[in-house]
Amino acid sequence: MDETPDVTPEGIERAAGRIGGYIRRTPVIEAEPGLYFKLEFLQHAGSFKPRGAFNRILSAREAGALPEAGVIAASGGNHGLAVAHAARTLGIRAEIFVPEVTAAVKVAGLRALGAEVHQTGSLYADARTASLKRAAETGALDVHAYDQPETVTGQATLGRELLGQVPDLGAVLVAVGGGGLAAGIAAALGGTGRVVAVEPERSPTLREALSHGSPVDVEVGGVAADALGASRLGSIAFGLLSGVRSLLVPDEAIVTARRELWQRYRIAVEPAGATAYAALLTGAHRPAPGEPTVIILCGANTDPADLQARPS
Amino acid sequence: MDETPDVTPEGIERAAGRIGGYIRRTPVIEAEPGLYFKLEFLQHAGSFKPRGAFNRILSAREAGALPEAGVIAASGGNHGLAVAHAARTLGIRAEIFVPEVTAAVKVAGLRALGAEVHQTGSLYADARTASLKRAAETGALDVHAYDQPETVTGQATLGRELLGQVPDLGAVLVAVGGGGLAAGIAAALGGTGRVVAVEPERSPTLREALSHGSPVDVEVGGVAADALGASRLGSIAFGLLSGVRSLLVPDEAIVTARRELWQRYRIAVEPAGATAYAALLTGAHRPAPGEPTVIILCGANTDPADLQARPS
Ligand SMILES: Cc1ncc(COP(=O)(O)O)c(C=O)c1O
Ligand SMILES: Cc1ncc(COP(=O)(O)O)c(C=O)c1O
Repeated sequence: MDETPDVTPEGIERAAGRIGGYIRRTPVIEAEPGLYFKLEFLQHAGSFKPRGAFNRILSAREAGALPEAGVIAASGGNHGLAVAHAARTLGIRAEIFVPEVTAAVKVAGLRALGAEVHQTGSLYADARTASLKRAAETGALDVHAYDQPETVTGQATLGRELLGQVPDLGAVLVAVGGGGLAAGIAAALGGTGRVVAVEPERSPTLREALSHGSPVDVEVGGVAADALGASRLGSIAFGLLSGVRSLLVPDEAIVTARRELWQRYRIAVEPAGATAYAALLTGAHRPAPGEPTVIILCGANTDPADLQARPS
Repeated sequence: MDETPDVTPEGIERAAGRIGGYIRRTPVIEAEPGLYFKLEFLQHAGSFKPRGAFNRILSAREAGALPEAGVIAASGGNHGLAVAHAARTLGIRAEIFVPEVTAAVKVAGLRALGAEVHQTGSLYADARTASLKRAAETGALDVHAYDQPETVTGQATLGRELLGQVPDLGAVLVAVGGGGLAAGIAAALGGTGRVVAVEPERSPTLREALSHGSPVDVEVGGVAADALGASRLGSIAFGLLSGVRSLLVPDEAIVTARRELWQRYRIAVEPAGATAYAALLTGAHRPAPGEPTVIILCGANTDPADLQARPS
């Protein structure tokens, strides 16, 4: 793994210590016998993203490399919220670029956190291009959403927590956009359990990378696009996920999974947060006999108004 | 404690074993340093109530005293949902009486669970009277919402879980209606930590019982009435809560607390489920220096549509 020098057990250990005072250790519930949910939507800023954001920014600060201009990021929304939250917590400036698909609730949240927000282009990739141009002008620290070692190592702390929370780790179902979360978890688990990647049919970045032998641009869209709509898998993620299967789920299954999480468990997540669960409901993932399943419920920056009000 | 023969450490231990296969061990999150939430809204049927309901019904079954006619209950909604859920799980009949204040979402849920539902009278107390009359006709097992030893002992299993989940128990804030939940938790904790009861200003059953020296009828109303709207504290609860302070919170504080739980933590609970947290936000409860606070988030049978969509 030459291309991922920092995503190592020691690096993950150090990241956990570095960000420990800034993130919530989110709990796990055994929802049904052998079915565990990691309640990561309870994280600050409503998704797992502060793990990577804090790790990137605090690493730069430790190295004395935090510029006067603060931090800059491109994001479908959640990464931006995380960077804005981290910047506010640490007392530094943040500039965030988001595409037009980003949910209004996320844009409003970014502004409420005091970030300077630019909404531009139709895809995450467009916002990314604009942010790089701007970073070159201001000298701000670029905090990548998924393809920097510090980001992936930060997300890996979620996997490290899991090791202490689920007695006998089996399949760990994780939604994939740019792949930082799944890659981090895979790195943290090492040989314990196995990561199963889940992608919307309309944004199959890992599936396409695996079949082409390297990350390629794909067309992205669908109900989870504002979180899972990276156009291309990250190269760090590709290095760490080469042995991982990608399961695809249609948009309707994501919508159903989100509803079912509310009806059965009173958990209100966003579409990306329900994507891994959709693979269980559709049967795309079938647990091996006796193998526990862990679902990462990774985000809830959503308007709960469209969750139906039938209890079960 | 002559009046509470069964709410003993041994009884609670037995209840935990009896219902263990039927309830979820709900997790705790340290939301802020020293502030813990018990996520009991993740329980089956959306509230803590199945603990007591299963304990009552399974105790009767163990004693060979489960009638052919099944079970009957009066409820503002959540207890009914719990009894209906338990009855369906155990394959027995359930008849549920609810007052007119009961939220539509709860009535629909009762029907979806296969219970026979009667909506009658303006208060819980009216539904209770109707259910007793009907029980006398059918011979069904009466499952009381808060004033039977098996109910209180079942709710106590929540307190027993807490002992293993929070390292250093301080104040445990609990919403009170008939008092079964708070009494059970107080019994389970024994001398560890201290229960702080929280009541809506408009349903102060414990406050009035304490000032009169015994449970008395009070006028009840307000935003949490369908869950906290018992007209009178239970006698078992009175025996167990005589040393507990009652804090009062206005309806507006409950509404705000519910919103804040969503904005800050992406937790969507019903008004009763946010009532204990309201006492912290209003300052009615001020933690002693260094004393951890535990908030019981006890129910989420709510329509999430009115939670505002601003993230924080
Ligand atoms: C809620 C949520 N889940 C999953 C992902 C995917 O993460 P990654 O891009 O690291 O694969 C994101 C990314 O924004 C997200 O916001
Ligand atoms: C969500 C919720 N919280 C609290 C209570 C109060 O419980 P108790 O009546 O045991 O005091 C109830 C009772 O229905 C409830 O449904």
